[in-house]
Amino acid sequence: MIEYNHPAAQYYQQISEQCIHYLSIDGVIFGFHQNQLKVLLLRWKGTDEWSLPGGFIRKAEPVDVAAQRAMQERTGLNKLYLQQFHVFGETVRYDQEDTWRRINLPVKGVNWSERTISIGYYALVEHSKVVPTPDFLTEECRWWTIDEIPSLLFDHNNIIEIALQALRKQLNDQPISHLLPETFTIPELQRLHETILGQPLDARNFYKKIMASNQLERLPERRTGTPHKAPYLYRFA
Amino acid sequence: MIEYNHPAAQYYQQISEQCIHYLSIDGVIFGFHQNQLKVLLLRWKGTDEWSLPGGFIRKAEPVDVAAQRAMQERTGLNKLYLQQFHVFGETVRYDQEDTWRRINLPVKGVNWSERTISIGYYALVEHSKVVPTPDFLTEECRWWTIDEIPSLLFDHNNIIEIALQALRKQLNDQPISHLLPETFTIPELQRLHETILGQPLDARNFYKKIMASNQLERLPERRTGTPHKAPYLYRFA
Repeated sequence: MIEYNHPAAQYYQQISEQCIHYLSIDGVIFGFHQNQLKVLLLRWKGTDEWSLPGGFIRKAEPVDVAAQRAMQERTGLNKLYLQQFHVFGETVRYDQEDTWRRINLPVKGVNWSERTISIGYYALVEHSKVVPTPDFLTEECRWWTIDEIPSLLFDHNNIIEIALQALRKQLNDQPISHLLPETFTIPELQRLHETILGQPLDARNFYKKIMASNQLERLPERRTGTPHKAPYLYRFA
Repeated sequence: MIEYNHPAAQYYQQISEQCIHYLSIDGVIFGFHQNQLKVLLLRWKGTDEWSLPGGFIRKAEPVDVAAQRAMQERTGLNKLYLQQFHVFGETVRYDQEDTWRRINLPVKGVNWSERTISIGYYALVEHSKVVPTPDFLTEECRWWTIDEIPSLLFDHNNIIEIALQALRKQLNDQPISHLLPETFTIPELQRLHETILGQPLDARNFYKKIMASNQLERLPERRTGTPHKAPYLYRFA
């Protein structure tokens, strides 16, 4: 039975009128905290079901702007570093019946497209600056360590996996700097690489390779308050 | 004045009924011939105006399948190596008035969306196997050397530039093999790299680097009929 007066039905009706049908945006927001790669997830109202943040594209809105808007609303950050990484264009991306049952919403009968083609973006953000904020359909927004992500709604586990593959290819490019505070130590940078790759790296080889890449600038200060000899601080040149 | 009986108007009307609005596919089909990187372009009926091949996505068709279908029709090849590389999602991607004037078609008034978001794919094909074939709106399909591409319709010069940037990033990965015949010499492979990069490479460094990558297998045969000492033939391992 379709409950047209349900707030979610009205919400989807509004989106149906204002946004481009058949298209959506999904966002994998990566952060780095306590030596772990993390992703921001949302818990749907009245359930234990989690999904990625996402959004729709207004009829007269550039796609990149729609992605910025959606990710800004979930993080409180302006001008996020965003990267398109894949279009998820299969006709059947997930089991719709099962999904509507899990989120317990009467959205099935709403005037919305039969299929949704999703444009995947990943964001690289500085963990400490994010204020996780749920959206209209969800009641909790928080970080999950990449290894501990539960079985998500829709095809969102797959979307995270493809985003991670894309991020690994960018590992030696400058964008990684968006995941770190302005200054960091070499062991911290190594841990970031390790958590993205999902495997340990040899410290001496890592140091040699990162120094040879000429991307870093060593600062006069050292990190104090660590149990070891105070390590130098670096920043991206 | 809108001529609804014009064949092109009927063509667009049919697409409008069968395909997803607001979305299209553009294809940059790369080939390698006579030491040059080439792209397949189409000339529009009764004009000197060229564009990339493209297509639309049927309502119940996976996006990748739609891309394969469109590129197959232009090349005569099955199962092309295709790679999504970017979504062109700006609200105004090009001057519509100017475009309709250049292609001399009454499509402006047809029931089609105000804007089109295009999913860019590039294809890597073996030049000698392609049978260039125009579509309903065009009368010539042929290869253009990358340096000699004219001012194209829509935003297609920009799409080629972004495709080329994506291809450069893939240069050291296996997919490049799709541009070559099964066997080739090291100088031929070097020329392919040079034409993609748009700059000459040092032969000795190239040889060292390519051998260190362990991607190639040397065959017992040599290339005969060249003015120089017969070079060895290789293939991707």
